[in-house]
Order: sequence, then C-alpha cells, then structure tokens
Amino acid sequence: MHMMDTPLLLTSFLNRAERFFQAKKIYSRTSATTIHEFTYKEYVKRTRRLADALTKLGMERGMKIGTFAWNHHRHLEAYFAVPCAGAVLHMINIRLAPEHIAYVINHAEDEILLIDDNLVPFIAPIVSQLTTVKHFIIMGDAVEVESIPIPNALSYEALLAEADEQFIFPEDLDENTPAGMCYTSATTGMPKGVVYTHRSIVLHSLAAGLADSIAIRESDVVLPVVPMFHANAWGLPFASVGFGATQVLPGPMFTPQLLLELFEAYKVTLTAGVPTIWLGVLQEQRQNPRDLSSIRLIVCGGSASPIGLVRGFEEELNIPYMTGYGMTETSPLVSLSTYLTHMEDYSADEKMHVRITQGMTMPLIETRIINENGEVPWDGKTMGELTIRGPWIADEYYRDERTEEAFKDGWLYTGDIAVMTPDGYIKITDRTKDLIKSGGEWISSVDLENALMSHPKVFEAAVIAIPHEKWLERPLACVVPKPEYKGSISKEELLENLRTQFHKTWIPDDIVFIDEVPKTSVGKFLKAKLRDELKDYQVQV
Amino acid sequence: MHMMDTPLLLTSFLNRAERFFQAKKIYSRTSATTIHEFTYKEYVKRTRRLADALTKLGMERGMKIGTFAWNHHRHLEAYFAVPCAGAVLHMINIRLAPEHIAYVINHAEDEILLIDDNLVPFIAPIVSQLTTVKHFIIMGDAVEVESIPIPNALSYEALLAEADEQFIFPEDLDENTPAGMCYTSATTGMPKGVVYTHRSIVLHSLAAGLADSIAIRESDVVLPVVPMFHANAWGLPFASVGFGATQVLPGPMFTPQLLLELFEAYKVTLTAGVPTIWLGVLQEQRQNPRDLSSIRLIVCGGSASPIGLVRGFEEELNIPYMTGYGMTETSPLVSLSTYLTHMEDYSADEKMHVRITQGMTMPLIETRIINENGEVPWDGKTMGELTIRGPWIADEYYRDERTEEAFKDGWLYTGDIAVMTPDGYIKITDRTKDLIKSGGEWISSVDLENALMSHPKVFEAAVIAIPHEKWLERPLACVVPKPEYKGSISKEELLENLRTQFHKTWIPDDIVFIDEVPKTSVGKFLKAKLRDELKDYQVQV
Repeated sequence: MHMMDTPLLLTSFLNRAERFFQAKKIYSRTSATTIHEFTYKEYVKRTRRLADALTKLGMERGMKIGTFAWNHHRHLEAYFAVPCAGAVLHMINIRLAPEHIAYVINHAEDEILLIDDNLVPFIAPIVSQLTTVKHFIIMGDAVEVESIPIPNALSYEALLAEADEQFIFPEDLDENTPAGMCYTSATTGMPKGVVYTHRSIVLHSLAAGLADSIAIRESDVVLPVVPMFHANAWGLPFASVGFGATQVLPGPMFTPQLLLELFEAYKVTLTAGVPTIWLGVLQEQRQNPRDLSSIRLIVCGGSASPIGLVRGFEEELNIPYMTGYGMTETSPLVSLSTYLTHMEDYSADEKMHVRITQGMTMPLIETRIINENGEVPWDGKTMGELTIRGPWIADEYYRDERTEEAFKDGWLYTGDIAVMTPDGYIKITDRTKDLIKSGGEWISSVDLENALMSHPKVFEAAVIAIPHEKWLERPLACVVPKPEYKGSISKEELLENLRTQFHKTWIPDDIVFIDEVPKTSVGKFLKAKLRDELKDYQVQV
Repeated sequence: MHMMDTPLLLTSFLNRAERFFQAKKIYSRTSATTIHEFTYKEYVKRTRRLADALTKLGMERGMKIGTFAWNHHRHLEAYFAVPCAGAVLHMINIRLAPEHIAYVINHAEDEILLIDDNLVPFIAPIVSQLTTVKHFIIMGDAVEVESIPIPNALSYEALLAEADEQFIFPEDLDENTPAGMCYTSATTGMPKGVVYTHRSIVLHSLAAGLADSIAIRESDVVLPVVPMFHANAWGLPFASVGFGATQVLPGPMFTPQLLLELFEAYKVTLTAGVPTIWLGVLQEQRQNPRDLSSIRLIVCGGSASPIGLVRGFEEELNIPYMTGYGMTETSPLVSLSTYLTHMEDYSADEKMHVRITQGMTMPLIETRIINENGEVPWDGKTMGELTIRGPWIADEYYRDERTEEAFKDGWLYTGDIAVMTPDGYIKITDRTKDLIKSGGEWISSVDLENALMSHPKVFEAAVIAIPHEKWLERPLACVVPKPEYKGSISKEELLENLRTQFHKTWIPDDIVFIDEVPKTSVGKFLKAKLRDELKDYQVQV
C-alpha cells in the first residue's frame, strides 16, 4: 500500500463525536410530555453500554439485531452500538402489516429485538411466529417488564444500568461489513431487504455533508421527521453524529403542531420528511405562526412535491425547500434540487420549477434515464426508466430471487419513469406501473397530479389509467377537494385549468371526487388500490 | 456484495464535469499577457486527447509520467489524463536543486516528461543524467520544438492536434491504483516520494467539499496560488473538477499585484497559499485596494500565520482567513481552523487565536499529540509530537529506507511539535528539530516568532536554539525589520514586548537583525541554515 488502508467505518464517526463534540446536545422526545436532553458525551457512554449489554446477551459479528421504534435517543444508540460492534442493525418498518413484520424478522433472522414500549402491541401478537428471536428488549422511560405481554421481555434501561460504559469497539472490521438493513415494500409479495455496509453509509454521510448537498455541519440542529425505520432516516442520524450536529428526535406520533413547537423551541436548522408532512406543517404555520427563522433548509423526498407546497415554504415563509430523490435501495440520497450558478439568472417561476424536479445527481453516483433507444435526450420531455449506480446503491435484495428484476448489468432499475431536464436534473413522471400509455403516447400521471394539486381548491389528486377501447388506456383523475370546497368544486373548472397547461391528448377523460387517496405504509399514493376500485368505471358523458 | 462495489476513481470526477458542467469555465494564464479561457466541455475533450497522445507514445498502466510546470490548463489536463488512464502523475517540484530534480525523475522512473517551455532551462542541462525518460513534451502556446535544447522534444499542442478526443478511459481500475506522486524535501539526503491513490484523492476531495471544511462547491471560482507541483495544489484542482467549480490558474511567476488583479477580474471566491504570499497580497492591497468582495475564503497553510496577518484579512479587509495543517505525506488536508458553534461566544481576540491554530481534525482522520506519557492533555500547553492516521495519509515513502523513521505502528510521525487546545485544535509549536530544549523545558520557537512578527515594526522573525553551557540550549531571535524601520528598531523594545507575553525563561537571550530569513524551495523557514550561520554566535551582554 502507498496510502494507509484505513477502513471507512461508522466507528470513526462515533469516536469523532466522543472526542470533539462532547458538550453538544441531543434532545429526544419519548412521550407527549417528556423530552430527554443529554450530551454527546453521555450519548457515547450509553452507546458503549448498549453494545456491552447486547454482547452479554450473545450479540456477535454478523448477527442481526432488529429495532421496532420511533425516532428517539435509544434508537440512535442502537444506530451505532450494533454496527460498530460488527453486528447488523435491522430497522423494521413499524407500519408494515403484521404478517409482513413477522416475515421480515424471520427472513433477516433477527436474534434480538429492541422494541418501543408503546409499540409492544404490534409485536406481542406475532411473537409465536418469530423463529429466530432469542431476546426482546423493551425501550421506554419506565418499563415494567412484568406487565409486558411478551415472555421474558428485558428492560433496555435495566440492561444499560448493568453494562460497561468502557466497552471497546473492534478496530479490525472490514469496511464492507454489513452495518444495517431495511426492507422495502413490494408491489406484490413480501418486502425486500437491502443491506447497507459501513463503507456505503460513511460515503453517503460524506455526500450529505457536502456544501452542494444538504451540507450537514456542526452548527446544525437536525430534526429528522422521516422515521428512523425508513431508509436510515435518510442518513441524517449517521451524518449528524459524524459531523457533531445537535439532534432533535421527535419521538412517537407527531402532529404538525408538535413539529412546529420543536422547530421553534430548539431553533432547528435542518429538517427532512415527505410532502404530506410539509403540507400539514404549512397549513398549521399559516394558522398559528411560529418563529421559524432558524430553519436554513427543509429537505423533502419520498414523492414529488406539488409546486404550491414549495411556493408556500420558499415564497410565503422564506424557507429554502429542497426536493430530492432516493429509495431504500439507494441509502437513499441520489439527487437533490440544489441550484447551479447559471440558475441565478432564472426567473422566480423557473427557480420553482427547478425545485420540484428530483434534482442534480450527487458526486460518485451515476444516473441514466433509458428507453428502447438508450439514454434519453436532456429535453425535459422524453421519458425513460431511471437507472442508477454508485457506491451507496444496493446491488441485490437480501436473499431474494427478485434481485434479478431490479439489478441488471451493474445498474439498479428503479421502476421510476423520468425525464432529464436540459440542466441534467431528474424529473420523475411516474412509476413504470402507473404510467398511462395512451395510443402509443406516454402520459405522466405525476405531471397531471401536480397540476391538479396546484389548484387552490384541491387537497390531493391521483391520476390513474382506465382501459379504453381505442387508445388502450386513458387518464382518469381522482381528486380530494379541500374541506371548504367539498361539494362546490366542479369537474369543469379543473379540466379547464388543465387545458391551459397540457396538450389535449393528456386531459383526463373524467374527474371523480374521492374522500382520500389510499396510501402505502410510508405515505406514498397506493394507486393499485384506486385502479382496483375504479376498474369498472364508465366515463360520464 | 450487498452494495455495489463501485471503485472510488478520479474518472468519476472527470465524467461528472463532462456531463453536468460543460459550460463552466477555466481561465488559465500562460504568460504575462495571455489568459486562455475555455469551457469544461473543451477541457475534457483536450484531456481525452492528451490521454490518447500519451498512450500512443507508450503510456500504460502504472507508468510514471512527470510534470514540470506552473499552474495552468495543460497541467490540469495532465492531472486527469494520466491517472484516469491508469498511469501515475509525478508532479515535480520545479524549485528543487538540479541534482534533486534528476534524482526524483530517476527514482520515480518517469518515462515521459511534460515540461513548460519557460522551464526548459531547468531540465535541458540534466537530460543526460535522466535514465528512464523516453519522451520530452514541451507545453506552451507557441512551442517550436526545433529551438528547444532537448533532443527529440515533442510539442504538446502538436500531439493533441493529432489525438482522439473520444479516447475512452478504462472503467476497471482498482481504487487503490496509484494516481499521483510528489516528493518532499528531506532535512538531509534526497527528497522522499509519496504516492497517492485514486481512493485517497477522491476521499480527500470529498473532505474538501464538506460544509465544515473548505466547502468547495459548484458556485466557487477557485484560484490555487499553491503550486500544482506542491502536494497536489492541496487537492484543489481535483475537487474543483469533481464539483464543477470555475477555475482560475495563475500561471508562471506571479506577483501580489497580479494575484489581486485576477481576484478582482474573475470574482474569485476561494484561494489558497502560504503565509508569505498573503503577507505580500495584504501589503499590496493596502497600497492599491481592489474590489475583493467576491472572496469568501482564503486558506493558508505550509507554515503558521502570524496573528497580524490574520487580523489584516479578517478585521481590515473582512475576508475570512482560515489556517490549516497538512504536508506532502497527508494529501495534504488534515485540519482546518473552522469555528465551532460554541465559539460564537468568543471575543474577537479569542476568535483570532482560534484562527492561528492549525485547527480541527477533519472527518475520517485521527490526530494524536504524544509525548513520553502518551497523548498529551488538551491544555494548550503540553507539547508532544503530532501523529496522524487516516485514508489519505501515506503509509510509506516510495522505495525509501527512511520509511521506518516516520511510519510506525500504523501512524505517521510528522516531526512537528504541537499542543492541543481545550477545544481540540492542533497548534504547532515547532519542528522536532527546531524545538529549543532549555534546562528541561521545551520552548516553542514558533510561538516566539509569531509574537515577534505581530510587532508593527517586524517583517519576519525566526527563533533558533544556540548552545548554552548551563541550560544546554537557549533561544536566539533573528529579526527582519520592515524596510521603513531598518536601523531605527531596537532590540530592547522587542524584548520588552515579549516580556509582557511570555515567562522569563522563554525570553530570547539576544536578538540579531538580519536581511532575510533563509527559506526552503517551498517557502518554509530554513532554520538549519540560520543555525549553521550563527553557530558561533556569542550573546552581546
């Protein structure tokens, strides 16, 4: 070797926090009335205690340790204690159906589970189905294990009290050692597992610290609204520890009101979540304004943001609102709608349209939008499937035959239909399975939805394909009006509005008003359900 | 593998520049009157041409290709053409003595040399001593090879004109492939070689892009004053290409006046160099002020910055001035004097004292200051030797027995004496060999020098050890007065000033006034020469 072969390990982040950021704070809301406040010094000690306690229970290298928990300090302790010890942190999505929860625990072969006390009701009924779990550890402020309806349940705090805060993490891990895993919902069948490594998480964290990215830094106060059981909370907890940012963890079940209170009270600078969260926050802020002047950036991902939402934050509240693209398979950060220098000359409206793209591809990551002719031109019009490769992109589903559907020739095929703007920004137009193929033309359901959701009377909208004799498929719009316009909104005013923006072949054949768009466990539109409900729909002429 | 095993290659930076930053500009000054202006699109084409031309001349993987050149666009082309093709770029320090130049070329086994036309006089006389070089390529705007006093010299531009701009770089390089090398001067003997890898340079570049570091970004206009033959120009050219920053390369032989003209004309945002450069720039700016409002950061390294210099930029000109630490062996960035959140409460004076430290250790890098008792306490007082490890730190000198003097137990022993401040910031107090050991106490020559150089009448100062019968060693100060105070400055006023700042045991036994502090080829104080000149010095009582 010419250069030191120092492995890229999460342990270096933990050591850095212990060495340089001892006095920095972590605020953790564990119930409606309790916020724990402690320092990184104490955090690292407790993390060492947790690693020691788990080791005493049999944790060893490569073992899977599951968490079933909200965003709080104990979950953050597990985020480092498990991988730094050489074991694998399986962050279980608490919103999965019970049979899926049992499946992912058994499939990952979790041997220890860390469970929030208020989430025990989701695990207790399936305990008998779990084939590999040896220990159940209950996390909470006042856990009485006798009253937990799981046999031999252990108390997290009792274990930590007995453990050694001097526990020493190994220095000889290979950087490709598995560190974490998440399962992602599949359209059909059981969830699919993705395994992250120390190397992939460290590189992803560096990317999140870049000035041209989210730019996480020591002076930040980071509040991840995105759950820690969902794609590593977009990597924010890992990067925050490594860069020494103050962290505010919002705990179980939060409302827009509560989030706004936390933003104001802790002078949050950086926060991240899905569009539905920000829709709620924007509405609440309009009604009960808080001081949000500390926020330097809101990051939004998971699905496309309607332009009205971006305008609400950027123009009304003067808070930068950046959309991004990623998925469980991509760690998740792939692209972000940062601005490039030449965009300084863009009009305010053009800038908004940059913001609602999925953005510019990050360093070390390659993206290609491909159709049957190869890579599509950067014209903002030609659609193709988004494919990705890079050092924090999965190259398989964990022990799963569906690997070959998504991973081909060294690239991840995302199943997302996108166009590339002339600036090289990705703009998702659809899921492959949601794309409307009308008479040989591809119609983007997402573009139509965004246009509908920008209408002042519309709360949510989903556009689906309905069968058509001549064109094979035609778009049908399903619209949820804002409560105050329910009953008074007309199909014609919405269609008229669309006609000013799209070619006539794109205009939906009809609009139906619905009460709610069905959603997946992570808040994405579940159009398969809508399609199923409306499969016999006849256009009213 | 669970994640893609995408190697960390410089090629990904070049591809990114080609894909996303085609219209961004590079400005390259190749003579006193010529500034080339071209786009990244053209830059990448020329870089591919260069790789093709070199390949046709026999360049293959692992071959060493030397450059002997100033900071300009052709050098930047070689920065990527050579490593991306799998060969190794040897950046030769043009300021070495002729026998050292011949040594490093022979020792590295360079087979092709790229030489600036105006630097041919340094190479022509030693051509007969070069044992491995097969081709000499002359870089310049109007090279006539017939008039070059090197047999069979080739013209860079003529080769590029014949070459293929579609040259395809290999995708199958291992990330630990050597990419570049620099030799560093040794106190005794020949220079010692350091080999950088694709992995080490990519990771170092990411670190330079972090918000808490130099934060190189697409919107930057980067002017590296630090030579491209000196520790990779501190990594700025690599990172600038990867992040798409505009680059301004100042070319041969620059003056403070010229640098200020470039800063103003191209609205430079980020620049980097050694303290002597900034002393000159500050003086010139005071006399002929330019508009420097575009500069967001000056980075200073190589040796310690006197506090007066930092004040000049930060307080007088309102330009952030950040010191750092690094060496050829460390790629070079190890630490930077960024501010931490709690320093917001520091007084202006305390902030200045943070700025003149060598700063906070970067992510993924570990630093320890050790003495015979292990790591020194973080008291800002206890001295020890700075040791470093991490993924962009060398673990050997290239084919050199002196490796074992500096690399021990997986750590680089820097030979620098330092203290750690209570904030965990490194403060260099001396070179091990410059440290003054007086009666069992360690006296920092650098602290005394900084104090002397803060005196309004002093231009430069070097403090050396002189032999002493009782105390073994005592400090002697060698002072260069500012021109206007030459003859009128007194020893006593300087000593009196020191007595207000240091314990009496630290006060130099005498002060001698000299015309100039002798310096190394990279502008560092050459105290060995002073010690030699003054070895028979008798204190005048």
